[in-house]
This record gives sequence, structure tokens and C-alpha cells, in this order.
Amino acid sequence: MVYRDEIQIQTSGHRDMHEITIRVEQIVEKSGLQSGIIHVFNIGSTGIVGTIEYEPGLEKDLPDMLDRLIPPSLDYGHERQWNDGNGHSHLQSTIIGPGITVPFEIGRLLLGTWQQIFHLEADIKPRNRTIVVTVIGE
Amino acid sequence: MVYRDEIQIQTSGHRDMHEITIRVEQIVEKSGLQSGIIHVFNIGSTGIVGTIEYEPGLEKDLPDMLDRLIPPSLDYGHERQWNDGNGHSHLQSTIIGPGITVPFEIGRLLLGTWQQIFHLEADIKPRNRTIVVTVIGE
Amino acid sequence: MVYRDEIQIQTSGHRDMHEITIRVEQIVEKSGLQSGIIHVFNIGSTGIVGTIEYEPGLEKDLPDMLDRLIPPSLDYGHERQWNDGNGHSHLQSTIIGPGITVPFEIGRLLLGTWQQIFHLEADIKPRNRTIVVTVIGE
Repeated sequence: MVYRDEIQIQTSGHRDMHEITIRVEQIVEKSGLQSGIIHVFNIGSTGIVGTIEYEPGLEKDLPDMLDRLIPPSLDYGHERQWNDGNGHSHLQSTIIGPGITVPFEIGRLLLGTWQQIFHLEADIKPRNRTIVVTVIGE
Repeated sequence: MVYRDEIQIQTSGHRDMHEITIRVEQIVEKSGLQSGIIHVFNIGSTGIVGTIEYEPGLEKDLPDMLDRLIPPSLDYGHERQWNDGNGHSHLQSTIIGPGITVPFEIGRLLLGTWQQIFHLEADIKPRNRTIVVTVIGE
Repeated sequence: MVYRDEIQIQTSGHRDMHEITIRVEQIVEKSGLQSGIIHVFNIGSTGIVGTIEYEPGLEKDLPDMLDRLIPPSLDYGHERQWNDGNGHSHLQSTIIGPGITVPFEIGRLLLGTWQQIFHLEADIKPRNRTIVVTVIGE
């Protein structure tokens, strides 16, 4: 009923985006479960997981939007407290969220044709990311 | 333990909002499950599902807010790549998300009195939308 | 397979933030379940639940960001309809969301070291909040 696996990715830092749909679908297949939901979750407070049409335009537009609404240059309390330069990274991660839940049926994710699962690095330096994938179903 | 159904809606295009709480609750009842979570998910990358107080004021305020923060008029990479005029639709969908999870108990959704489940069309043309509802529980 | 409990908090009104990670983890422990997901959900349309590095800087930055992007001072349709002064509260809650799902393993939440679960009050007056926690697993 519960199957757990992890995806490891190496990011190059702020604005680096990865498509992880196929790796998530492989975990659904390995689980042997036929119907249910998968939950995909970035461990850590400066990474983002969601769905989008994964193509070069939006791969630029999404981090552009986040940097426009939540600019690196603003005066953040987090920066005054810790001086690690990533106040915007935390807020960008919280507004979209660190995880997504997607339904599946007969081993296939129920996504649109132009709807993929992405990971977006919001932190300012390269990170090794662990993405926890939990398959719940029967 | 897993019950699956779908809600079909026809939208009129950008900013069109539907309340789907009752249809979701009917699926919970049909499932026969007593306690757990339901997951409500829009298939496709330009639709939005979430919770809000569903009333005429916010039915205008929510799309207004999205069009103010993520305007149709900006110069999007998605537009330069595909010329389909819906770069903002994708970003609006990703920032709120295509789905929501809600707890239920004894066949009743655990929502506030003024908290409903909505679907918001972010695409620029009318769409037939399939919303996948997954009930997980016992 | 399903374990349900609630967390009650008293908030002081708009921008009041609480860390609830430990209380959520205690519910996972009480459930006796070894592996799965927990879903944490604010009942009501003006409360927010998510993850963040919980420290004094971001405790100010997060409500600051929401008040900057979705200001209390704007002319909201909700205000014209109901005159209760909390149009921004509803929109702030919808953009981040009322709930979060987190994986757990051997009774421990799979969060980063600096990643905590928070509740943020978006309403304009003190509220008694019920946060529903659902543990799904085996």
C-alpha cells in the first residue's frame, strides 16, 4: 500500500530547473500499485517541486517570475539574521511549495500531455537534492 | 482503500471559476470510506484547483490578483517559443497549483463553513476540463 | 492505515505565525505507523499551512512578502460585498494554500534540518484554529 523511493539530483544553483516526470513514473511502475496518488517532496526549505509545461520558454519564465515578485535584492530579515544571501530562496520555495501530489492509474501518472513534474532550485549555490517519492495506493 | 472518480467541467476561458465542493463531497459519499483524504487534481498545465470562500467578490478578486502579479501582457519566453498567447496561464497555474488535498470524516469534507473547493480556468480559451478525484482512506 | 488528530492554536491575528512541527511529529508517533505521508490542513479560508526555515527573520519576511504582493489596502470585491476587511486574507491563504503534505519514515518526518511546518494567520482578528492532521501509511 505504501512504496517509498528517492530521486537524487545535483543542481547548479539559483534558477536551475530539472524535469523529473519519467523518474517519478518509473517509481510508480516499480511500486506495482495500480491506482492511487504519488507525493513528490523536496527535502529542505529552498527547493521547489510542482507541475508545468516543461519547455525552454517556461524554464526561463518561472524563475523570472519568482525573481520579479520576490527579488534577491530586497532587504530581508533572514539576511540580517544569517547573512547567507538566500532570503528570497526561502520565500520563493514557500509560495509555490516543496511538493506536489499527482494521481496515477495502471502505473501511469494522470498528467496532461504538456504537464510535467519539475524541480526548481531556489537556493543560491549548487545543492545535492534528495526528492522523496511516496506511492500510496492499491 | 482507494476510490477514483472524475468531474468534467466546461470552462469559458481565462478567469472562469467554478465551485466543485458538492461534486467532490458526492464522490466521498459514493466511496463508502469513513476517514481519510481526498485529492482533487486538474489534468493539464493551465488549470487551477484550490480552496477559497466562494462568493462573487473573491470570484473576481482571485483572477484579478493573478492578472496583476502575472500579467497577460508581459514578454514571456513561452510566447516567443510557441506564440499561443498563454504564458501567463502556465505561471498562474504553477504558483497556486493544479490540485488540493482535503481531509474527510464520516463522508463529510473537513472544510470551514466559508471554505469551498474551486476550479479556476487560467487558459485563454474555453476548455473541457477533467478533474481527477482520488479518495484514500478506510 | 489512517490516523486522525487535531492541533488547536490560538492566533493573535494577521501575520501571527506558529511552528507546529513537533506537534505534528508527535501525532505521527502516536499513530504507530512506520511509513507514509501526513497531511496538515487549516480549517477555514484565511489560514495558511506550509514549510519554511522557522527563524525570526523569515517569521517577519513571509507576512511582509504577502502584504507586499497582496496588500490589505487594495480595493477588493470581497470588501465591497461583505465589509469585513479581510479580502487580502483570503487571497493570501489561497496563493500559498491551507495545507501541506510531508512524508515520514519510522515515525520521523522527512524534513530538512532547517525546514519546519508553520501555521500563519492571514485573518485580521484573533482566531481559534483547528488544524486537522491525517496520517496515511502502514
